[in-house]
Amino acid sequence: MSSDNCKRFIEAGDIEVEELPWGPHEWLSRPGLTAAEQLLLVRVRMPPGQAHGFHRHPQMEEIIYVESGEAEQWVDRESRILAPGESAHIPADVVHGTWNAGEQTLVFLAILGPATCDGPMLIDVSQDDPWVSMRD
Amino acid sequence: MSSDNCKRFIEAGDIEVEELPWGPHEWLSRPGLTAAEQLLLVRVRMPPGQAHGFHRHPQMEEIIYVESGEAEQWVDRESRILAPGESAHIPADVVHGTWNAGEQTLVFLAILGPATCDGPMLIDVSQDDPWVSMRD
Repeated sequence: MSSDNCKRFIEAGDIEVEELPWGPHEWLSRPGLTAAEQLLLVRVRMPPGQAHGFHRHPQMEEIIYVESGEAEQWVDRESRILAPGESAHIPADVVHGTWNAGEQTLVFLAILGPATCDGPMLIDVSQDDPWVSMRD
Repeated sequence: MSSDNCKRFIEAGDIEVEELPWGPHEWLSRPGLTAAEQLLLVRVRMPPGQAHGFHRHPQMEEIIYVESGEAEQWVDRESRILAPGESAHIPADVVHGTWNAGEQTLVFLAILGPATCDGPMLIDVSQDDPWVSMRD
């Protein structure tokens, strides 16, 4: 898509919603929506009991920023309960995952950069050792 | 600073506050605080009547994401009033500025990438034509 079709302003009606198993993803910046080269931005609404299990982005750095609710956030073998306004920084290729640790919907921003990569964007390691038993 | 000193989790007590003329900046990701290479993240609390006037980042793409309050956001020669949950995407080197258009504190996230650059991070153009009279 040419950059002429890309939006500078993402108002409520411009958001692109993608349904994923762990909750709707509301895209605010990605190629085709904005002229994104360096920055992806998606707001995730994760219902109680849901999770995006252990995975890694080989070529993208990520920040998870909690807007509302409570996240059990893992980065490598460490975890914290993050409250609204708190965040986690995940270097490229570091395994991480997010669980909704609370009783309300967890709303968080996932910020990734750069906006594109050569290989796969995401590798699921949730069934691999040691991650499959990390939370036991 | 070695990456050994860099934080993976930024809880409330880890945030680095920087006082700037248009309101306090609460840093959540920058080199030295996190292992940031691709992503800067700062939360700005802009009082009513304040603004960060027209400027550009020669080498960094930016997203402005409104958390609360109301932003008069300019990107190049266009502006919108952005409500909470709305955003603007600003390609590298494109002039932009943010005014608090409401009567309450405007809280927004500024996301920039990549996290470092060779030259100056920011060029103020607020006193240059045509920006000096753009809002008249």
